[in-house]
Amino acid sequence: MKLTVKLVDIGTREVLLNIEDARNIGVLAGDRVQILNEKTGVSVAAFLDTTTSIIPAGTVGIYRITNEKLGVDEQSSVEVRIADRPISLDFIRKKMDGLRLTKDETYAIIRDVVSEDLSPAELTAYVIACYINEMDMDEVEHLTRAMVDTGERLTFHTHPIVDKHSIGGVPGNKITLLVVPIIAASGLKIPKTSSRAITGAGGTADLMEVLAPVEFSATEVQKMTLKVGAAIVWGGSTNIAPADDHIIVQEYPFRIDARGQMIASVMAKKFAVGADIVVIDIPVGEHAKVPNIQEGRKLAREFIEIGERLNMHVECALTYGDSPVGRSIGPNLEVAEALRILEGGETPGSLLQKSLAIAGIALEMSGKAPRGTGTQLAKEILRSGAALKKFREIIEIQGGDASVTADDIVPGKYEFVVNAPASGYVIELNNKALISLARTAGAPHDRAAGILLHAKKGSRVEKGEPIFTLYAERAWRLQKAIEEGRTLMPVLVEGMLLDRVPHETTWV
Amino acid sequence: MKLTVKLVDIGTREVLLNIEDARNIGVLAGDRVQILNEKTGVSVAAFLDTTTSIIPAGTVGIYRITNEKLGVDEQSSVEVRIADRPISLDFIRKKMDGLRLTKDETYAIIRDVVSEDLSPAELTAYVIACYINEMDMDEVEHLTRAMVDTGERLTFHTHPIVDKHSIGGVPGNKITLLVVPIIAASGLKIPKTSSRAITGAGGTADLMEVLAPVEFSATEVQKMTLKVGAAIVWGGSTNIAPADDHIIVQEYPFRIDARGQMIASVMAKKFAVGADIVVIDIPVGEHAKVPNIQEGRKLAREFIEIGERLNMHVECALTYGDSPVGRSIGPNLEVAEALRILEGGETPGSLLQKSLAIAGIALEMSGKAPRGTGTQLAKEILRSGAALKKFREIIEIQGGDASVTADDIVPGKYEFVVNAPASGYVIELNNKALISLARTAGAPHDRAAGILLHAKKGSRVEKGEPIFTLYAERAWRLQKAIEEGRTLMPVLVEGMLLDRVPHETTWV
Repeated sequence: MKLTVKLVDIGTREVLLNIEDARNIGVLAGDRVQILNEKTGVSVAAFLDTTTSIIPAGTVGIYRITNEKLGVDEQSSVEVRIADRPISLDFIRKKMDGLRLTKDETYAIIRDVVSEDLSPAELTAYVIACYINEMDMDEVEHLTRAMVDTGERLTFHTHPIVDKHSIGGVPGNKITLLVVPIIAASGLKIPKTSSRAITGAGGTADLMEVLAPVEFSATEVQKMTLKVGAAIVWGGSTNIAPADDHIIVQEYPFRIDARGQMIASVMAKKFAVGADIVVIDIPVGEHAKVPNIQEGRKLAREFIEIGERLNMHVECALTYGDSPVGRSIGPNLEVAEALRILEGGETPGSLLQKSLAIAGIALEMSGKAPRGTGTQLAKEILRSGAALKKFREIIEIQGGDASVTADDIVPGKYEFVVNAPASGYVIELNNKALISLARTAGAPHDRAAGILLHAKKGSRVEKGEPIFTLYAERAWRLQKAIEEGRTLMPVLVEGMLLDRVPHETTWV
Repeated sequence: MKLTVKLVDIGTREVLLNIEDARNIGVLAGDRVQILNEKTGVSVAAFLDTTTSIIPAGTVGIYRITNEKLGVDEQSSVEVRIADRPISLDFIRKKMDGLRLTKDETYAIIRDVVSEDLSPAELTAYVIACYINEMDMDEVEHLTRAMVDTGERLTFHTHPIVDKHSIGGVPGNKITLLVVPIIAASGLKIPKTSSRAITGAGGTADLMEVLAPVEFSATEVQKMTLKVGAAIVWGGSTNIAPADDHIIVQEYPFRIDARGQMIASVMAKKFAVGADIVVIDIPVGEHAKVPNIQEGRKLAREFIEIGERLNMHVECALTYGDSPVGRSIGPNLEVAEALRILEGGETPGSLLQKSLAIAGIALEMSGKAPRGTGTQLAKEILRSGAALKKFREIIEIQGGDASVTADDIVPGKYEFVVNAPASGYVIELNNKALISLARTAGAPHDRAAGILLHAKKGSRVEKGEPIFTLYAERAWRLQKAIEEGRTLMPVLVEGMLLDRVPHETTWV
């Protein structure tokens, strides 16, 4: 059916038809229709919304994301018909039925994912099928390659290229801001793409954005890395392994991180930036993504195997994942904490130790340090000020202010100090509760929102001493976080009252 | 955040925010937000679309389906905030993890399904999880009860109430139009709710709509059944077991019909209309939903068990499902064929036999006929004209023209006769290909479109004799069906050329 275009600025891959035209074409809301740009011959599939009034019969509303591919003008003419069913739906069905997918089938699915030819529900079916019927290592390899081949890649002519990754789930894990400058200061190249927080209080990209822009093309990342040895950017804008972003969105409602897809997405990003040497940080603990050492080792072996299949040298570090890394959660607080260490200031144990260990592994793998001496070399690079100098070069080349210091980065002006309700040892810091609290306070969108821990697990506090401070940029957010904290009780002090029945819950 | 309402006539459960407001609230496109009608206190969750232009900051676009629950006026004020995550997502995750759901958990999910509080992707996850990790009989019972309790019910004070169901997948299965009048003419009550075609060429509701309106409330169905003993209506408008409609939509892209959900949805509809006696027609065959007798018996036992748990007496008939029932496919053609049998006219074997057998089982179960004589009684009711008289009463009470005859119902004016390309026996009638062809020709939307079979499986045809005729209401649809037929080859004659390489495929 020939229809006249009306452009509609709604950010989805949809079109809007009058219900009468939809009936004539034989489609219902939610169905897939094919739209042909008659001028260019470009044809795009999109999902259908229907209306009885805002689009008259004879007109089709083309939403923004649809028109990014279709490229039609207001009032131009398009042909709209029922779309063919993508063959990839049969492959998703196959995975639902417990069968293995071939390389070609996986590629067909991932191509449709990247071109947004699958609806959110259809993509969800793929994600869930792979979550329940776990992929084998061949399928993970195919998925990794498909993710690489459907996105941009960096090409370096000198080697080795180093990369690192933390699989996440631990709040305050700002080690990238220390590890990358240390590795680059040793003369190695490390083009680091990072994520923004989805479920967390601040991804590395959110943290780095406190100091400098983080949105660059793959080519720009390559150029910056060639110039100063490193970059710390948001992976989303590089278009490297873009399938992953789509998949993660569908996992989000169920709080799953399907093993095969997680391995593939990490390894695809490393492979696509041209990495030879990869260190993967696997936090292990009851409240982390990986619950125990056995599971951690199993996952490590799988990362290493996929690395071998793709000619990357992978080592994994199982790290302590049951409480926050360092003392801060939330963009500004975390950046200030990292900068302070680079500046040679106060050094909370867990953050410094973990950063030096991870950097040290990369230094050993690349031959910069003999086995067993990597941590020592990393420490020297930090102490010498070379890491701080390198970090400033990275900030500068990304367009930030290289003269920034830890003191320039301040927390939100609304704060609330939580004091110990009893004397005793801190017996629990609950990751999930701390992240939830930081998010309620506004992090990561409100960069100055977050949590500063004054006591850590195992430390002794006296009744009335501060245990942590909540920061927010907006008063109502602080208030909401305070209320949530009363329920979540993210910090437990041995001997404190957990609950007071029957009425109000006592919070630390 | 307080925002001013702009009503948007788009038929989805969404709202539209300016990207700036979305950032301030801390939500992304696709997220769930909660909207509070400040005048009434009604609060509704909806999914977010974003725009940079058509909705200014300070305003929220409320889509039609959202406003059906919210009930706000143009320019009124609403409070918009991040919505809480529905607890049912945790239960869906639990099913994904291979665990059994409790009764309460199933009820929580189905309540959210019916109130449309789950996104299509979230509902898909539930459907896929139950498809892969099959429900046990307890879970199926809970799902059945949850589907009943979240919809309308009929209450009859006389018993027994009879119902029948065909699990579908076989084209031309218009037996309900014969079975219901026969049963009602015997003095039994049978309030029959039916579906419209989703993947087929015409559901029973589409067929009945050729003769009379089919959209009634549950109360109206009850009244009509009390008056004339039966009604044949579209289940969708009765709001009986409405969860099923939502679930089916999500199964559609993958062409699945998850066993547990299918059993629950059938049995919920029977239970909700107050049925005591239920006959279930299970077509079995390579091209049907159930591939062989063993699978058919297993499914039958499960229907019977759920029936026992709900105090319904269930019997199942395994029927031949490998070719169409009768000789017609598509609303008008099927209705004419059924009417002709009721009028005592020509009687193609499969349709008449199957209808009498199914009706006979119900007559025996209800005590109207001794065991072994039900089919005979059904035949007598048909021959006496009592079934036709009853059918006319049903048509009349639903608002149709009771004087209608088979000759009044005509096929589409565009037709194409397909002749046998060789002499021999018809060795295959492909259900899926026939349905696809009838749909391409316009069925069920174009009621006069469809297929009339002149030869059936096993019959002898001579070269050049007609095998079937395609009908359409619109010339371009007929043309498209003819083209599709060349590829699908729905009818195979022994000895015919299946393909002619290299160029054009020869079609029967």
